[in-house]
Amino acid sequence: MNPIAELKSRLDKAGIWDREIELKRNEYLNVPGQADLNLYYVLEGSLRVFMEDEFEEHTIRLGYRDNFIGALDSFISEQPSQVYIQALKKTRLLRVGKVRYMNFIRSNQDNLDLWHFMMEQLIFQQIEREKDILTRSPRDRYQRVLERSPQLFQEIPLKHIASYLRMTPETLSRLRKS
Amino acid sequence: MNPIAELKSRLDKAGIWDREIELKRNEYLNVPGQADLNLYYVLEGSLRVFMEDEFEEHTIRLGYRDNFIGALDSFISEQPSQVYIQALKKTRLLRVGKVRYMNFIRSNQDNLDLWHFMMEQLIFQQIEREKDILTRSPRDRYQRVLERSPQLFQEIPLKHIASYLRMTPETLSRLRKS
Repeated sequence: MNPIAELKSRLDKAGIWDREIELKRNEYLNVPGQADLNLYYVLEGSLRVFMEDEFEEHTIRLGYRDNFIGALDSFISEQPSQVYIQALKKTRLLRVGKVRYMNFIRSNQDNLDLWHFMMEQLIFQQIEREKDILTRSPRDRYQRVLERSPQLFQEIPLKHIASYLRMTPETLSRLRKS
Repeated sequence: MNPIAELKSRLDKAGIWDREIELKRNEYLNVPGQADLNLYYVLEGSLRVFMEDEFEEHTIRLGYRDNFIGALDSFISEQPSQVYIQALKKTRLLRVGKVRYMNFIRSNQDNLDLWHFMMEQLIFQQIEREKDILTRSPRDRYQRVLERSPQLFQEIPLKHIASYLRMTPETLSRLRKS
């Protein structure tokens, strides 16, 4: 079993979820300035995490079915987040708060080991993401992400993947076909 | 005591270091294609971690006195690294291998808690770094990093900070003066 499915299954068994949340298409789960100390599991639908500067929006993460998502900056620092989290279609989530979650994680060594492993994976993904962003060729950026996250292309509308890959939708379309 | 100093002190007390390493200016600690499953602590000097594509070098991390550094992609995945690590001046490091280090971490709950905290901080820093890279205004990028890591500007030559900030040394000089 992959670590995400394993963690989800343990959280289910422990009955740890606070509640289920349903978002309409384009509805926001979080906006900048708001702290969000929850961890979410995507049952159905998809979301994008983005920030904006004075010029444009930057998609920094995409969430979809059978994955965890959250305002990670806020979850860790316990300060207000700087990101938007928005549903890209009708989305159903399970939610658990940080205190409850961390108590569950610390309740036994197996949980701690699993969370530890997932944090390592998260660090690794962030390093890969940094490499992605710094890769100048659009084709190489596309190939890197396609290889790492093929499911992305089934779950997320192309225009948001294009934003995540820092290219125009037209460029991404062309790369998909070639 | 800050977590880095605390971890260093615990490693010292446990006598966990494999050896001390000395690098000359410009010498490489790691090159792409080589696995490096070590964690290093900088006693003296400074280093840059960078990757290169067909166009240029990208500085992705800077290491200096009283901080840990490593080829984190390789340390986590146990695969060959994609990064160079190069000394920017004469540098002395302490080194510990992953197996030995992880055994030490797992040997008691305090160590685990401390490492857990540091992993969280690392994830948070990586998120901040992603925000940095995506921030289009050079002035804003500079301000973000100055606020987060003022020590950087004491320890690292400006041209490497400029590369890390993705601007020319001239632009960084101008921002420093204004």
